[in-house]
Amino acid sequence: IIGMQRAEVKQGIRMLILCKDGKGKMGLRIKSVSKGIFVAYVSKGSPAAMAGLRFGDQILQIDNETLAGYSTDKVHKILKKCNPQRVEFAVRDRPFERTITLQKDSSGHVGFVFKNAKITSLVKDSSAARNGLLTDHQLCEVNGQCVIGMKDKEIQEIMISGGLTVTVTIMPTFVYEHIIKSMGSGLLKGQDHSIPDI
Amino acid sequence: IIGMQRAEVKQGIRMLILCKDGKGKMGLRIKSVSKGIFVAYVSKGSPAAMAGLRFGDQILQIDNETLAGYSTDKVHKILKKCNPQRVEFAVRDRPFERTITLQKDSSGHVGFVFKNAKITSLVKDSSAARNGLLTDHQLCEVNGQCVIGMKDKEIQEIMISGGLTVTVTIMPTFVYEHIIKSMGSGLLKGQDHSIPDI
Repeated sequence: IIGMQRAEVKQGIRMLILCKDGKGKMGLRIKSVSKGIFVAYVSKGSPAAMAGLRFGDQILQIDNETLAGYSTDKVHKILKKCNPQRVEFAVRDRPFERTITLQKDSSGHVGFVFKNAKITSLVKDSSAARNGLLTDHQLCEVNGQCVIGMKDKEIQEIMISGGLTVTVTIMPTFVYEHIIKSMGSGLLKGQDHSIPDI
Repeated sequence: IIGMQRAEVKQGIRMLILCKDGKGKMGLRIKSVSKGIFVAYVSKGSPAAMAGLRFGDQILQIDNETLAGYSTDKVHKILKKCNPQRVEFAVRDRPFERTITLQKDSSGHVGFVFKNAKITSLVKDSSAARNGLLTDHQLCEVNGQCVIGMKDKEIQEIMISGGLTVTVTIMPTFVYEHIIKSMGSGLLKGQDHSIPDI
């Protein structure tokens, strides 16, 4: 149940206040997709992580400046220039993602296969099949914990270690690939994987 | 407000009971996308329309048979064969869609341009820009009313005739194109455009 609460994609827009760390960093990279600005990377333990920004969040405004139509570079420049003590973000909660709740069967399986965190097939008559999980989608979170950049084996372990209910948060792979395009794999691995507070 | 209620994409799975009309029809076409079965066409005034099926709904089960991985043809055959008096559907509410609420400015504009119902650009500092509307997305509903297959001029009229708040329900264009692929344009125009009850 707590995994479901952590994983819920909420409607509407939220406001966040961030500051920069001692090195002047927020620990955040963004990507422009379809005239929107999306969170592509949140560094572990960074101000962005602590403020609750997540991979896939859409940043609508920074300090009341609307970002629609801005390029990735333009927004990175705004982030560099802004006040290190206080930056205000207007954020829409992960608009490309949705959460599906699955139940483990008697052998502990929820019924899907994934490779590089991409769902590649469904097991017939499994919980995944009954609940309408889709292929061509990327696992972004498991029980509300970000799994972007994790190895498949680590993701598998998170699924095994949890209870009978597994919530997965998915995003169409074509969107995922847009967002992470031109990010190094080292950066992907440094993604914040902490378990969110509720 | 009532448009927002009509347009809301709800979480979870709902059960629907359908029957066939006098000609043995339900007025429903589906399409297989990423191992899921999606509503591609709901005929005006048909049993499917009256039961509340909408374009983009994912049909998980028909009479307790899980459809994951089935082809479009296989599901159409199941629909043909099933009991005309009573068919049970398990449906997930429009999983590829989400709803954005916009406010008209003093000249009555919400701030985006569309062509063939596809959002092509956003107006700077408009309600659409501030609320994070995205290009490369398709207008599926306006104020909760299905606009699939409508002419742009008709869609524009619905937006003009409503109140100051306009809710639009959008879906990534690449998914939309998958769902409507191989449907004739005549069929598209026959789509149910009635205003849903709440």
